[in-house]
Amino acid sequence: MIVHTVCFTLVHAAGSPHEAAFLEAARDTLPAIAGVQDFTVSRQVSTQSDFRFQFSMVFADQDTYTAYDEHPAHQRFVATRWADEVASFQEFDFVPLPA
Amino acid sequence: MIVHTVCFTLVHAAGSPHEAAFLEAARDTLPAIAGVQDFTVSRQVSTQSDFRFQFSMVFADQDTYTAYDEHPAHQRFVATRWADEVASFQEFDFVPLPA
Repeated sequence: MIVHTVCFTLVHAAGSPHEAAFLEAARDTLPAIAGVQDFTVSRQVSTQSDFRFQFSMVFADQDTYTAYDEHPAHQRFVATRWADEVASFQEFDFVPLPA
Repeated sequence: MIVHTVCFTLVHAAGSPHEAAFLEAARDTLPAIAGVQDFTVSRQVSTQSDFRFQFSMVFADQDTYTAYDEHPAHQRFVATRWADEVASFQEFDFVPLPA
């Protein structure tokens, strides 16, 4: 199990229609890709970071993650939305350890 | 609901007994504090970040989070373990948006 996450800030103003449209496009596109589980959009609220949002999703294994990364719908989202509308981002991937 | 997270790297060598002891001390201490839900230790595995671990926990609300932050057991852990054994870290807090 791999929890894939990306923290990001958009070029759009907070609360703007463009911000909402970007998040909606992500919700429409990314969770529909095979293998994506528990797709979640969150606000990043710690004052210790300037990032404003996070996408989080779970993959069963690395092969599923790789297939998502290479999937045309993901590649298209990156090329047509992410590349233009995201001002800064940081990826983290987590593998939970046994409790 | 607030998901409190911190990514970090220890001063200890990967796989060392000191690394294991730090993680065990955290597991013994932090989830036992009132209000901490779903305490999880993960390895950070993305090559896009140098951080090696993450702690994640869930609080019902900001008051519970604040009480945890101020709790003597948390403060003691920070003073006696975190301050000496963590080389670098970054906090993020997330509030999931409605799906």
